[in-house]
Amino acid sequence: MTERNISIEAADRTAVEDQQVEIVERKGIGHPDSISDGIAESVSRALSNLYLDRVGKVLHYNTDETQLVAGEAAPAFGGGEVVEPIYILLVGRATKKYDGKRLPVDSVALEAARDYLNEHVPELEFGTDVVVDVKLGEGSGDLQDVFGEENVQVPMANDTSFGVGHAPLTETEEIVLNVERELNSTYVETNPHLGPDVKVMGKREGDSIDITVAAAMVDSYIADIEEYEDAVDAVEEFAGEVARQYTDRNVDVAVNTADDYDEGSIYLTVTGTSAEQGDDGSVGRGNRANGLITPNRPMSMEATSGKNPVNHIGKIYNLLSTDIAETVVDEVEGIRDLQIRLLSQIGRPIDEPHVADAKIVTDDGVVLSDIEADVEAIVDDRLANVTDITRQAINGDLTTF
Amino acid sequence: MTERNISIEAADRTAVEDQQVEIVERKGIGHPDSISDGIAESVSRALSNLYLDRVGKVLHYNTDETQLVAGEAAPAFGGGEVVEPIYILLVGRATKKYDGKRLPVDSVALEAARDYLNEHVPELEFGTDVVVDVKLGEGSGDLQDVFGEENVQVPMANDTSFGVGHAPLTETEEIVLNVERELNSTYVETNPHLGPDVKVMGKREGDSIDITVAAAMVDSYIADIEEYEDAVDAVEEFAGEVARQYTDRNVDVAVNTADDYDEGSIYLTVTGTSAEQGDDGSVGRGNRANGLITPNRPMSMEATSGKNPVNHIGKIYNLLSTDIAETVVDEVEGIRDLQIRLLSQIGRPIDEPHVADAKIVTDDGVVLSDIEADVEAIVDDRLANVTDITRQAINGDLTTF
Amino acid sequence: MTERNISIEAADRTAVEDQQVEIVERKGIGHPDSISDGIAESVSRALSNLYLDRVGKVLHYNTDETQLVAGEAAPAFGGGEVVEPIYILLVGRATKKYDGKRLPVDSVALEAARDYLNEHVPELEFGTDVVVDVKLGEGSGDLQDVFGEENVQVPMANDTSFGVGHAPLTETEEIVLNVERELNSTYVETNPHLGPDVKVMGKREGDSIDITVAAAMVDSYIADIEEYEDAVDAVEEFAGEVARQYTDRNVDVAVNTADDYDEGSIYLTVTGTSAEQGDDGSVGRGNRANGLITPNRPMSMEATSGKNPVNHIGKIYNLLSTDIAETVVDEVEGIRDLQIRLLSQIGRPIDEPHVADAKIVTDDGVVLSDIEADVEAIVDDRLANVTDITRQAINGDLTTF
Amino acid sequence: MTERNISIEAADRTAVEDQQVEIVERKGIGHPDSISDGIAESVSRALSNLYLDRVGKVLHYNTDETQLVAGEAAPAFGGGEVVEPIYILLVGRATKKYDGKRLPVDSVALEAARDYLNEHVPELEFGTDVVVDVKLGEGSGDLQDVFGEENVQVPMANDTSFGVGHAPLTETEEIVLNVERELNSTYVETNPHLGPDVKVMGKREGDSIDITVAAAMVDSYIADIEEYEDAVDAVEEFAGEVARQYTDRNVDVAVNTADDYDEGSIYLTVTGTSAEQGDDGSVGRGNRANGLITPNRPMSMEATSGKNPVNHIGKIYNLLSTDIAETVVDEVEGIRDLQIRLLSQIGRPIDEPHVADAKIVTDDGVVLSDIEADVEAIVDDRLANVTDITRQAINGDLTTF
Repeated sequence: MTERNISIEAADRTAVEDQQVEIVERKGIGHPDSISDGIAESVSRALSNLYLDRVGKVLHYNTDETQLVAGEAAPAFGGGEVVEPIYILLVGRATKKYDGKRLPVDSVALEAARDYLNEHVPELEFGTDVVVDVKLGEGSGDLQDVFGEENVQVPMANDTSFGVGHAPLTETEEIVLNVERELNSTYVETNPHLGPDVKVMGKREGDSIDITVAAAMVDSYIADIEEYEDAVDAVEEFAGEVARQYTDRNVDVAVNTADDYDEGSIYLTVTGTSAEQGDDGSVGRGNRANGLITPNRPMSMEATSGKNPVNHIGKIYNLLSTDIAETVVDEVEGIRDLQIRLLSQIGRPIDEPHVADAKIVTDDGVVLSDIEADVEAIVDDRLANVTDITRQAINGDLTTF
Repeated sequence: MTERNISIEAADRTAVEDQQVEIVERKGIGHPDSISDGIAESVSRALSNLYLDRVGKVLHYNTDETQLVAGEAAPAFGGGEVVEPIYILLVGRATKKYDGKRLPVDSVALEAARDYLNEHVPELEFGTDVVVDVKLGEGSGDLQDVFGEENVQVPMANDTSFGVGHAPLTETEEIVLNVERELNSTYVETNPHLGPDVKVMGKREGDSIDITVAAAMVDSYIADIEEYEDAVDAVEEFAGEVARQYTDRNVDVAVNTADDYDEGSIYLTVTGTSAEQGDDGSVGRGNRANGLITPNRPMSMEATSGKNPVNHIGKIYNLLSTDIAETVVDEVEGIRDLQIRLLSQIGRPIDEPHVADAKIVTDDGVVLSDIEADVEAIVDDRLANVTDITRQAINGDLTTF
Repeated sequence: MTERNISIEAADRTAVEDQQVEIVERKGIGHPDSISDGIAESVSRALSNLYLDRVGKVLHYNTDETQLVAGEAAPAFGGGEVVEPIYILLVGRATKKYDGKRLPVDSVALEAARDYLNEHVPELEFGTDVVVDVKLGEGSGDLQDVFGEENVQVPMANDTSFGVGHAPLTETEEIVLNVERELNSTYVETNPHLGPDVKVMGKREGDSIDITVAAAMVDSYIADIEEYEDAVDAVEEFAGEVARQYTDRNVDVAVNTADDYDEGSIYLTVTGTSAEQGDDGSVGRGNRANGLITPNRPMSMEATSGKNPVNHIGKIYNLLSTDIAETVVDEVEGIRDLQIRLLSQIGRPIDEPHVADAKIVTDDGVVLSDIEADVEAIVDDRLANVTDITRQAINGDLTTF
Repeated sequence: MTERNISIEAADRTAVEDQQVEIVERKGIGHPDSISDGIAESVSRALSNLYLDRVGKVLHYNTDETQLVAGEAAPAFGGGEVVEPIYILLVGRATKKYDGKRLPVDSVALEAARDYLNEHVPELEFGTDVVVDVKLGEGSGDLQDVFGEENVQVPMANDTSFGVGHAPLTETEEIVLNVERELNSTYVETNPHLGPDVKVMGKREGDSIDITVAAAMVDSYIADIEEYEDAVDAVEEFAGEVARQYTDRNVDVAVNTADDYDEGSIYLTVTGTSAEQGDDGSVGRGNRANGLITPNRPMSMEATSGKNPVNHIGKIYNLLSTDIAETVVDEVEGIRDLQIRLLSQIGRPIDEPHVADAKIVTDDGVVLSDIEADVEAIVDDRLANVTDITRQAINGDLTTF
């Protein structure tokens, strides 16, 4: 091992890409759990920036517990209505007073939540379709570790925590991730009938990939059942096209499979999210830091969204391990499957983990020893620049869910 | 007495205008109690209209319990900020389901509250400076008394209730009422530094009238202490001008008397209402139905704002008695002081009160018997048309506070 | 006038006892508005005592805004159940930190509310039939006026406020007050089927008094409709007996007149309060400081319950004026009707009011000048000892509703 | 594969017991996330039983979203106090009306939460140290799948979901699990100074096991710093003894390593849980269904606690896969590491999964083919009896966290 306790070894298992059965899921941006994640992280960024603006450094806070209580809606072709609003409670801790001065943390948190909702769930009318309330307790004083305008310290680990990252994504993972992302960006631009609550499930058995999409349709853009069927078909076609960019395997796409046209039971919504009708949500219950739920891979239980990016090791290590894995695979040839795990060491700076271990499945014909040094150098470098993660998280350059 | 139990007699007291000491108060539109009243009544109107639109008649509801929990603010010359938002809870009962169909009462209530705040406390940013939440319980089923599109019934009294109205207003009452109204309409148009939380207290001793105004100034329009002093002086001058339109007595006006410039303690606010800093509010704690608090006159304890105008006798009788008193004084010469009191009779239509008694102080030289018949005719007519009050309340043509 | 600005004059009106029509109402201890009043005052006493215990003086607070949101219940002979709990929000301001030490104001407020409910609405199970939550904002710092263990100051008036008291009670007032009190003490001891939500309305026309009682019956003590009828009859009989102790006039008592046995609509409850089914409540909307609502008499709009008894002039003057009126009538013979009004003078100690005026109707054969000096002496003495009111309020020796 | 799609194969990896680095964590019963889990599951059981009692079958509900907002406390040797209560919001869906009858779901949920807290966090005074509120939306009608008194159906899978179970536990897992359990049962019986918030982290490198315990001490049982040190030492000794029952490897135990005696920073609490001071909690963020967080093993993200045990596949499959794994290892010799994974098949009964795959690492000298049939028989049998899981969950015979 190196000074930074970096360990690189061959994985004692088959690459996920080569396992017989693979399951992957992504809860789209408008899913109630993702809404909670998104708000929590958005509030976190807003507080970091508030502290930097007002006192020149990030103070103690954690806003990783947004709770969404579902509403009730009466969707209807051509436009229905929300009858019982969604209720969102922003929960966490924040420093409200510094140097004798009150800081508007509650108002800033509410503003961040409102802006996030307006941008990402635009059909949801703030204040009438959704009520946002806030309970941020007083934080326990100043944050010892400093991340400020003028100086940056590498914080100490004050907890045993664990982060894990993987690269490259398998084909199924790429498909699941990108189908949701493309639907919620390219597709929706010209197809406003698609709501942001798009859930994608991928299942691969051998070389056969099934993609199941649950896509909330927005009723005001859909006049009748024929238009609904057209909308479903269009999503199916688009998703298939996206999927086939990432694989030569056989791909089947099914959209809104729970629909029952005879019963009149279809996935029609007023606002584009199932939160309007019975689906509650909370932080850390959905996608991991890489945007996916991957039962074939070790995952961290830690909720990344909403945590303080200056000193919360769980957040930093989850983001950092993902970043390292991606960087290694970008820069080093010959890796079929890479897992990076970071384990903190209480009382030591977080750039000196208890152990940073890389488990690698190499491509056929590649020997681990050939690439070991390159991998280690990258791991070492990324650890040395751990505070980049904090900066990127504050700037919103990293996704957390 | 008539069939309607109308009793007209001479008052056994001096006219209020002629009493030695008179006290009058008005909490302006931006006072926390008035905000609660205003929202409650605005929600009530919105629900009445929702029911009329959807089912053709007004269903059971009462929304007379809005609770406002004050926030915390940090005002500053040139513009401060709210640091802890105001919290407003809409409380009441409403029918949420009718004929198998869900009615969006919560969303409609929230929308009414939001619109009301945006119009009347415009500096208060909805969703960040103020959080509005709602708890409307299920009403106890259908309303027996019908006020619908096609037919209107006079409801039965199901409670012993009491309303009281007075006319004409004394000079002091006119001054207190109009100083607030003019400040919050004419004056504020060209003087945006004045917030809507204007509280006016009038005290008359003999022929000497003291008007005390507490006027919340909006910090973003006020650069420094000099501008603040100018603003206070301008309000004082304007209030004096208004006052002198209503009296030849001596009037002294004082504005923001609690200010202490040396201590830096002035009435500067971010949003124009003291609700931003520690002043809670609720319905029915401020102005009576005629817009005033008048300890020299009998008053009803009943909260008028937010009550269902179809069948809530307390609301109807308070509005009606005020309306009757004003109509009589408009149309009949020679009345110096008139009090109309309506007392309901359980189990009888509300146009047949248990007693409707008028107590009159006539002008010098006028004998009660000369005007008695005219007064009675008006009382009788207004009672006969009691459902006008419901219509006017729903249309927002009557003020309730 | 004296140094304390005491004015004593003959009332320019008939004694209320001699007016033709008189209306009096009392909302019993279990009425939703009274529950709010009772909790607010109980929380106030608890905070006063907390401050006295911890820092030796009463700090700034006001807890006069308890909001009760009604629940839903399914009463049934032999015992039904609450299906939707009552929600009570304690609202106000309190000093949470003093001299660097945190004070448990929220926990103490919750405890006071819980204990109050357990004592006064015992059938209401805390935590399941009723949820109590709290929102006490930070008070604006230290209270200037000192009421401490070792020294007591007379506070300065910082607001124009007004209190009014009356004595003696009329027969109708005595009846209304005592019927409720006796039912909720003597009667209930041996008749647990009576709930605390007893509302008493008295109406006197000439020498004929109608007493209407709405009495919530507790279902677990009532097996069937016959027992219910017996219970109603027993209350009626008891109320009649109480009433006749206070008058020789003709008294009619009616209990639960809104019952409709054919429709099965009776006043049966699970918990003994209408708050369980649709009746919301808040502070200051019910009884005045003397326990009654008396439209025949001037009343203060000020909510007395929950206000800080050290320096809230409205509270102090309402309690004090009532206390003065009762003391005068106790000690001076020959008074048929007495009204005491206290008006504060901003910037002066509250024992020096702007005006303290007594309006007296003497008994036949008594001349005002004979008793004037005695009355004035008592008024002067009570004003001089104004801080007694604070002490009594903190000790719970004064009722506020 | 069998009719039930059971697949049994050798794992393509080393048994976790034989991997170089292993990490295991358990959040004890008093940890904020575990409190949320425990309440959610307790509410779920109460609702199942309510429905069985009242209508003979379990109706639609999900109560898997309890949100805990931390309080603030001022612990002190000999007994401190909670200054800002913990706030717990019960969130979910439930059927409130059935066959025209209202069901007391809110009251029952609150009662379950209260009873759970009283039993498991006894130092936390309900109603003053903690406020519990509830927001259960209306469920979307009747549950198709029937689990009633008289008949039981195997429900259909209506979602693609996934469960995973493992057995046997590794030594480190046994230690982590049992140290917490023994501390919170045997130890606490005679040592009331130990609070239920005991977090245990295990880390094994090769044959060296480090156990880190964070144990909240209850201040009222601890007089001074010496007693605190004794308490920490006693926990350390006890944990060591427990640990050594499960391994011959070298075990080091450390308790409350974040304490800093010089700074006066120790893990002293009023109530025995860190929820009293800044640690929020929510459901599904802590232990998996087997009571552990095991980053070395695939885990499901699904929150098990609070889900409806009749038809929520995620819950059923997580509990069932754990149950199968344990049963297999109990009854079949020669298994060093077993993973059972169940994947649902939309539209098919849940006893016919899309795939049930077992991955086995056998003991040295054991060949997979020797035990394959036995394993398959057990898997098949447990699947056939899947509704046992529902019954056990309702009865509280299964732990979910």
